[in-house]
Amino acid sequence: MGHVVYIATSLDGYIADRDGGLDWLHSVPNPEGDDLGFAEFIAGVDALVMGRNTYQTLLDFDLELPAQWPYPKPVYVVSRQPVTVPAALEGKVFALAADDPRGLSDRLAELGHQRLYVDGGRTIQGFLAAELIDELILTQIPILLGGGVPLFGALAEPQAFELVHSEVLLGALVKSHYRRRR
Amino acid sequence: MGHVVYIATSLDGYIADRDGGLDWLHSVPNPEGDDLGFAEFIAGVDALVMGRNTYQTLLDFDLELPAQWPYPKPVYVVSRQPVTVPAALEGKVFALAADDPRGLSDRLAELGHQRLYVDGGRTIQGFLAAELIDELILTQIPILLGGGVPLFGALAEPQAFELVHSEVLLGALVKSHYRRRR
Repeated sequence: MGHVVYIATSLDGYIADRDGGLDWLHSVPNPEGDDLGFAEFIAGVDALVMGRNTYQTLLDFDLELPAQWPYPKPVYVVSRQPVTVPAALEGKVFALAADDPRGLSDRLAELGHQRLYVDGGRTIQGFLAAELIDELILTQIPILLGGGVPLFGALAEPQAFELVHSEVLLGALVKSHYRRRR
Repeated sequence: MGHVVYIATSLDGYIADRDGGLDWLHSVPNPEGDDLGFAEFIAGVDALVMGRNTYQTLLDFDLELPAQWPYPKPVYVVSRQPVTVPAALEGKVFALAADDPRGLSDRLAELGHQRLYVDGGRTIQGFLAAELIDELILTQIPILLGGGVPLFGALAEPQAFELVHSEVLLGALVKSHYRRRR
């Protein structure tokens, strides 16, 4: 079973601005309590896998932990270096020694995690290039950033998808769900 | 009044593949006679402006001219070099000496063309960078190309848009209409 990407991008395909910032995500008002379908999505995955940069960006939000930690599923942080897990996140966040995407996928499958939510630019690009992504759930924010951290990278071959569903959220965001055609 | 971009891209934001090809656009079946709203759109613009490469790509389709020429509005081909217009396209296609986007926009306005359909990667990027685009009508084809000719380029500043409308076409394409927030 393939894995899934669930992420917001600018119209020009960036997931963070030139400084790695995410403030532009808030250019669209998000009424309190509206999770835009995230709870339903996260219920359908077994675990998350992300790189150390993405994890650090999350920690830098200065969330109240563990109350505001957004993930009810185990989060595996891929890193060549030791990863510091705050006491409040013990049992929620785990370090995972770096490996190629197929190796990571296999090791997490052995732990019972078949369907992974793959997050973070470099991790997503690696899993896509390894042909391990079956679903893309992309939310487009109506802004051109003109530079930043791109979601997608080079692929050896094109990958065709089918559209499962598309909807407008908050009158501003276009959220589209794609499934790989194999 | 600003100008408008109407174009199809891959999910990773390319308008042509690595060889400049457009075959991937046909990865989605398009029932004969369904113009996907193009006729209504083109009725609302005064003229088209495109670069020589885009014009040449059009000619290379070996359309039956003038019968299959897709544009009922004047097409201005921006070029530093002379542009060859086939006899069948006289009165439909005009050469326009290269200039910066604002100069082009001003000259076409003097000819009575207020609202331009701006086409072709480099021309679109130039008009966007010059803050001359007010509307984006983007149709996403459900494929990752993994490389090719990107639609968007660098901008000095982010540009915010509002979503006017989004719809699914042929059960496969997501067509979204954005208007610049000024």
